[in-house]
Amino acid sequence: MIPPTIEWAGDRVRLIDQRLLPGQLVMAEITTVEQLCECIRTLAVRGAPALGAAGAMGVALAYVRGEDTSEAAEALIATRPTAVNLAWGVRRALDAGDPVAEAVRIADDDVRVNRAIGAHGASLLGQDARVLTHCNAGSLACVGYGTALGVVRAAHEQGLAPVVWVDETRPLRQGARLTAWELKQLGIPCTVITDSMAASLMQANEVDTVLVGADRIAANGDVANKIGTYSLAVAAHHHGVPFYVAAPRSTFDDACPTGDAIPIEHRDAAELDEVPDGVTVENRAFDVTPAALVTAYVTEEGIIRRR
Amino acid sequence: MIPPTIEWAGDRVRLIDQRLLPGQLVMAEITTVEQLCECIRTLAVRGAPALGAAGAMGVALAYVRGEDTSEAAEALIATRPTAVNLAWGVRRALDAGDPVAEAVRIADDDVRVNRAIGAHGASLLGQDARVLTHCNAGSLACVGYGTALGVVRAAHEQGLAPVVWVDETRPLRQGARLTAWELKQLGIPCTVITDSMAASLMQANEVDTVLVGADRIAANGDVANKIGTYSLAVAAHHHGVPFYVAAPRSTFDDACPTGDAIPIEHRDAAELDEVPDGVTVENRAFDVTPAALVTAYVTEEGIIRRR
Repeated sequence: MIPPTIEWAGDRVRLIDQRLLPGQLVMAEITTVEQLCECIRTLAVRGAPALGAAGAMGVALAYVRGEDTSEAAEALIATRPTAVNLAWGVRRALDAGDPVAEAVRIADDDVRVNRAIGAHGASLLGQDARVLTHCNAGSLACVGYGTALGVVRAAHEQGLAPVVWVDETRPLRQGARLTAWELKQLGIPCTVITDSMAASLMQANEVDTVLVGADRIAANGDVANKIGTYSLAVAAHHHGVPFYVAAPRSTFDDACPTGDAIPIEHRDAAELDEVPDGVTVENRAFDVTPAALVTAYVTEEGIIRRR
Repeated sequence: MIPPTIEWAGDRVRLIDQRLLPGQLVMAEITTVEQLCECIRTLAVRGAPALGAAGAMGVALAYVRGEDTSEAAEALIATRPTAVNLAWGVRRALDAGDPVAEAVRIADDDVRVNRAIGAHGASLLGQDARVLTHCNAGSLACVGYGTALGVVRAAHEQGLAPVVWVDETRPLRQGARLTAWELKQLGIPCTVITDSMAASLMQANEVDTVLVGADRIAANGDVANKIGTYSLAVAAHHHGVPFYVAAPRSTFDDACPTGDAIPIEHRDAAELDEVPDGVTVENRAFDVTPAALVTAYVTEEGIIRRR
């Protein structure tokens, strides 16, 4: 059993400290907004849907402590720019009469939404599908169940026996550390590869489907997701492999016309360890896949096909 | 100054122990064939042209020690299957009357050959070219100067001011560790990126040319090179970016009709560190780029265009 990624615990937030996975499963107890902001910045909690819940719970924390909720909201939103769900969760809690009840509602909804995404998406996978995924769009990226991995999970529960190629996902290795750990807990067979091997597997006809999550989807269907997603989309297009994006409606940002308007987070060069002193590193955390390369979007409301 | 990657030192082989770069530049003194085989297996010395010289020097070592040179040849060739230069160097030394003189000749030739590759290839780069490279095809992959990086180096010496995007190159990080170190020694500006960021840079029009080395080129032009090369070739094709392969004639294997006949080395799963216990890893060290995706080959004899 994988515990909830993040939950409201009376007067505090309890979350899985994902920095310690896969070595240790440790729950952190968070009592202040500043602690929560630090958890978000350092990716102790990450993943667009989980950040939606985290944002709302951050406002709830300020509320129960009698602090300025608007100030907390501002600090929370400033931690990470790309995933739209963070600001969405913060604003929902801020606009609610009772931020605590709203944060709990968002968390509860998230699991229901992901199960719906899974049920819709499983219909896209055949028997014994060989699915390739990037980063972690699983239970650990959400409150529970998962988006892209939710689809794999639903297929697994239906006896379709999917198997998963897991991109390592440099630099922070969310695939090798988190996705592989989750799939192992669930008993779903998986194999970890370097990110650069994915195209070669498609060339060898060893991939039936690419399935990823999203941090923000623009009004025209462009998808911001973990760096490396675009490379997979290009390779999938070249090989005629379907490329699916699984995400809740809260990840669709209708105020953002195209991918060009999505802010891309640049992270610390030190995430690429052991580079010679004095050598520059470029560490963009996300990229944008144009809608034209997306075969379909899997949401809780159903499947939206683009081509 | 970067010392020769490998040289004959009277009765022994002296080589840069590349496992210790970029932290330390240490020369290892190798006196037995078994030590040399271990250096090749563990990538203390690597890179197709350098392996050609290493193979010849291995036979020379057996010869000066009065050991069976055929037995040494067999052991050397068995260390790594993909780079054709290794067997080529071994056989040249084995067939020569004086294996030592032949090994020294191969090493001397290598630097001359690479300078010729550089001179031809520099004509392909314009002023201020933004070159993207993968793995290490520099001085450290050869006896000296480099193949793909030799082209960059020649352009730099001609005042063309190239700048280089360096793919980290998982799992063993030859780009971040070796290529970045070399370019820094040479004063050529470079920036290290994760392998999965390359396509995104092409999308943003930040790459003028992709330039890589090769471990073996089949008779039809298919290119075996470090895993991840194929992914770059697909992305370059998608974005209309020229994709050049720089390699000496000794890397062309006319006995190998197509890429399908090139043996691909699978390496130890442990090279992908920190994967959860019990999770499978697939670690193919090379991939094959079909000739159709190669814009041109740069050899010591000139440029061969495919499209």
